[in-house]
Amino acid sequence: MPYRSSDKTRQKKDAKRTAMMQAAVRVFAEKGYYAATIRDIVSAADVAIGTFYFYFPDKETLFTYLYEETADFLLQTLRQAVAGRSTLPHQVSAGVRAYVNIAVFEPAVVQLLLVGGVGALPALESQRLRFRERLTAIWQKPLDAAMDRSLIAAQNTRHTAEAIAGACDEVILNLINLPDAEREAEAVVNDLVEFILRAVAYHGS
Amino acid sequence: MPYRSSDKTRQKKDAKRTAMMQAAVRVFAEKGYYAATIRDIVSAADVAIGTFYFYFPDKETLFTYLYEETADFLLQTLRQAVAGRSTLPHQVSAGVRAYVNIAVFEPAVVQLLLVGGVGALPALESQRLRFRERLTAIWQKPLDAAMDRSLIAAQNTRHTAEAIAGACDEVILNLINLPDAEREAEAVVNDLVEFILRAVAYHGS
Repeated sequence: MPYRSSDKTRQKKDAKRTAMMQAAVRVFAEKGYYAATIRDIVSAADVAIGTFYFYFPDKETLFTYLYEETADFLLQTLRQAVAGRSTLPHQVSAGVRAYVNIAVFEPAVVQLLLVGGVGALPALESQRLRFRERLTAIWQKPLDAAMDRSLIAAQNTRHTAEAIAGACDEVILNLINLPDAEREAEAVVNDLVEFILRAVAYHGS
Repeated sequence: MPYRSSDKTRQKKDAKRTAMMQAAVRVFAEKGYYAATIRDIVSAADVAIGTFYFYFPDKETLFTYLYEETADFLLQTLRQAVAGRSTLPHQVSAGVRAYVNIAVFEPAVVQLLLVGGVGALPALESQRLRFRERLTAIWQKPLDAAMDRSLIAAQNTRHTAEAIAGACDEVILNLINLPDAEREAEAVVNDLVEFILRAVAYHGS
């Protein structure tokens, strides 16, 4: 059955690619982009160096894929969390909680997107801007819906969404630098949610 | 008069150092940390390459000085703006306006601190954290004073200050990417100030 066999081969290959990507997130978080070597990544992923070059021409290309896929993962998680709720307080709470959870349990992901990746490659700046655009859009959508129904004050929801995105980043980056981040996470979620609901002047039920 | 003469020599030397630092901000903003060369910097500053090595052992050291002095400049400007006002709305307004002005008229400064420098050098991470700490403290001080006088809601002012710092960064980074940043600046200042005053639940006169 050639189809099955080729399918299995692809799965095996994808597993190796995934292993390298996961190893790379950790290696970049530990050593920083420039100090991290391809040898570090293949060693952490336990694959041969030839396997690396089968998938990626160089470290820079791996990093741009990694940034893109990490951003996709974070944005999809946030979008699903927000989309599953129907009132603004629940949407804000679910979005903030999802973001804080990723930060606490996979700090390397947040580190890569917000610190490690930024400024590492000039070519990454357009990717960074697109990530910020998409993140802002996730927050702006429920704000527009709430403003249409006069549940929040009249405001430039684009600026508000940018401010919310930036506020979450900063508080969360501080959180993951704490030695007891997991224990502090609940207080951070509550403070951020209250901050955001006050900031948009939510006055719904 | 040897003292005068040595004083003049020092002034001349300081002028060359300043010229290199100012050139470096622009060169790093244009090319990014890694693509920028020492030759680019001395050429933009119109000094001999030997002059560079008289002041700095390498590009990395120049960059860490530059990050530190740029952060000092921004923080001092913000601190003075806030310290010159006595009510929270005026403090917030003056702080936001000062930050937006620096961003609009010296975008390379903000670019260096928030994007270009971040992640460029692993050694810079502790400098980045200290910059963020000091920035947060500038916002937290007037919040604590206002909360003592029950002019804002009871809240964790540390988390609020972090959120405000992050909110300003994000909105301002988006502003300086606009083609007509200078024209949009006033609306951004107003939106940010209103966002912040709502977020802290200010209910003073």
